[in-house]
Amino acid sequence: MKIAVMPGDGIGHEVTAQAVKVLKAVVGHTQPLELVEAAIGQAGIDAAGDPLPAATSEIARKADAILFGSAGMPGDEAIPFMMRPGASLLRLRKELGLFANFRPAFLFPELLGASTLKPEVVEGLDLMILRELTGDVYFGEPRGSGINAMGEREAFNTMRYSEPEIERVAHVAFRTARSRQRRLCSVDKANVLEVMQLWREVVTRVGRDYPDVELTHLFVDAAAMQLMRAPKQFDVIVTGNIFGDILSDAAAMLTGSIGMLPSASLAAGSFGLYEPVHGTAPDIAGKNLANPLASILSLAMMLRLSFDQPDNAERVERAVRRVLADGLRTGDIYQSGCTRVGTEEMGAAVVAAM
Amino acid sequence: MKIAVMPGDGIGHEVTAQAVKVLKAVVGHTQPLELVEAAIGQAGIDAAGDPLPAATSEIARKADAILFGSAGMPGDEAIPFMMRPGASLLRLRKELGLFANFRPAFLFPELLGASTLKPEVVEGLDLMILRELTGDVYFGEPRGSGINAMGEREAFNTMRYSEPEIERVAHVAFRTARSRQRRLCSVDKANVLEVMQLWREVVTRVGRDYPDVELTHLFVDAAAMQLMRAPKQFDVIVTGNIFGDILSDAAAMLTGSIGMLPSASLAAGSFGLYEPVHGTAPDIAGKNLANPLASILSLAMMLRLSFDQPDNAERVERAVRRVLADGLRTGDIYQSGCTRVGTEEMGAAVVAAM
Ligand SMILES: CC(C)[C@H](C(=O)O)[C@@H](O)C(=O)O
Ligand SMILES: CC(C)[C@H](C(=O)O)[C@@H](O)C(=O)O
Repeated sequence: MKIAVMPGDGIGHEVTAQAVKVLKAVVGHTQPLELVEAAIGQAGIDAAGDPLPAATSEIARKADAILFGSAGMPGDEAIPFMMRPGASLLRLRKELGLFANFRPAFLFPELLGASTLKPEVVEGLDLMILRELTGDVYFGEPRGSGINAMGEREAFNTMRYSEPEIERVAHVAFRTARSRQRRLCSVDKANVLEVMQLWREVVTRVGRDYPDVELTHLFVDAAAMQLMRAPKQFDVIVTGNIFGDILSDAAAMLTGSIGMLPSASLAAGSFGLYEPVHGTAPDIAGKNLANPLASILSLAMMLRLSFDQPDNAERVERAVRRVLADGLRTGDIYQSGCTRVGTEEMGAAVVAAM
Repeated sequence: MKIAVMPGDGIGHEVTAQAVKVLKAVVGHTQPLELVEAAIGQAGIDAAGDPLPAATSEIARKADAILFGSAGMPGDEAIPFMMRPGASLLRLRKELGLFANFRPAFLFPELLGASTLKPEVVEGLDLMILRELTGDVYFGEPRGSGINAMGEREAFNTMRYSEPEIERVAHVAFRTARSRQRRLCSVDKANVLEVMQLWREVVTRVGRDYPDVELTHLFVDAAAMQLMRAPKQFDVIVTGNIFGDILSDAAAMLTGSIGMLPSASLAAGSFGLYEPVHGTAPDIAGKNLANPLASILSLAMMLRLSFDQPDNAERVERAVRRVLADGLRTGDIYQSGCTRVGTEEMGAAVVAAM
């Protein structure tokens, strides 16, 4: 198991350190474990003048998986676009072909009260958003700015998808639905956008290979409403890069505890990048206050998806549920009557619970 | 007062008829009222083979304002894009330069329980989303589909904004914030898209003319989260066409009673199109079941924004609050202990309450 560890910026360091601790504990001496740390984000700029140094890309390519912390610093607007700490993640996604971004939104029974939604609306919530991650308006060419025919300044990006790009993420979506409740909702804006008409057409065609999966379609505006109105109606949602960016954050917020949610970004094989959904949180960085559970749960996704170790993944997930049931809480999820712990203590508790 | 009335499809007819009833009652004989009905949507196809017949555009152009019902029919995917009933609205927006779409999201105290969010999160909610309506990926050229350099089918749309397009909606946004709580949040995706960098730059510059308005910026994914986490933090939100489509539907759903929400789409002067946020609801069309209050509240917006009659607007709004306080409910907002009424009865009750 060769894993590239990229803590990145802000709380990325602290939470990733706990996930590494759990990784070592769960894998133990059962197999050789090689961890290679690489600088990314502001750390990459500090180390090599580039948020995504060539050495980091190289380490990533030689690894089986990446454990990612978080990248980005406030106030980077003055820096050229692709040199910003946050952009390192975009470049990495594209370079490594990480096209399938899994963002589960599930509710821990212990944290039911944390949601701003009524308990009956979100209790038992367990949905998976699959966001296409290397196409769409994020990467479409042409892009840029200039002067239009009327002499006005303008800027533009291109929302673009090819048939193979849609096909491959659709296959992943149907296979994912198969491993769950066999219901897939594809979200687009086919009533307005040609690119989304192609999306709907291709997803529908791919769906013929999966007659056992129920396929529905929603326009993105209706999907945003339904996520809020009745989120439990969904099993798997598949959508493009920008709609997925918006809907997956909304879905994460349904749970009320975004500090708890992991994500996985997979390439064509078993290679993947695993990262907590939360950001760098510079305000609490370095204070032993951050919640490491999202990073630890991302590690569990890595064990399952990149290393085909479902048993180890479940051990980690069970341990997380156990520390929550025992009443341990970092500040972000603290409720009265619980025991407040720091980042390190939470990581140690998960290890102990295994 | 010359008003083009476009009931459109589905429940559009019934709800618009009630708004017209209220309009006649509120304006009374105080001034000449000219109502001209025009076919649009499926009704336009039936009448003239085009969802937006030339005669309808002509009537619209000669009017001071448009009272719009709802357009669109399920299963229109086989029809060429711009000939679909739902597309008539897009064409009308563009033809008439209706660039400023106001979508208020407010909670009626009587309907507090209808939201899926906890009462304390949404009680007293009163936010205004201003969505740019004639630019962005909805109308950007080039658009279409074809075969790419690798011989694959692909499709594309262009997210494009010019400086003047952003400027004019920004001015409307700041003026709107001035008439409210003087807080404006501009939503973009400037961390990824060049077009949204221009958006942020121009909104920021325009903001210097409004030093009394507090301007903040949020990325669209963060905005979707914040709308769900703490929607009352917002006063006015301004954003582009596609992000506005998604966020305004999410904001509407916060209230739990989308059948209650009006909208206005304004051109440069006082000309505007007024329509309920809800759709054609073909399943309940023609059954005297639809809720006409969103259409009636759209009429109130018309009186205020196109005819500068704030007193009449308030009379209508007060009457709506009154019938709710009296316990009258259509099926969509029915609660036990209330009196269930039909579309016509609800309209009549509003007239009576005035
Ligand atoms: C940081 C940003 C570029 C990124 C994105 O928009 O993809 C983030 O929001 C995410 O969802 O991972
Ligand atoms: C019907 C559709 C084209 C339209 C849009 O996307 O603008 C609708 O969703 C709206 O918000 O008015």
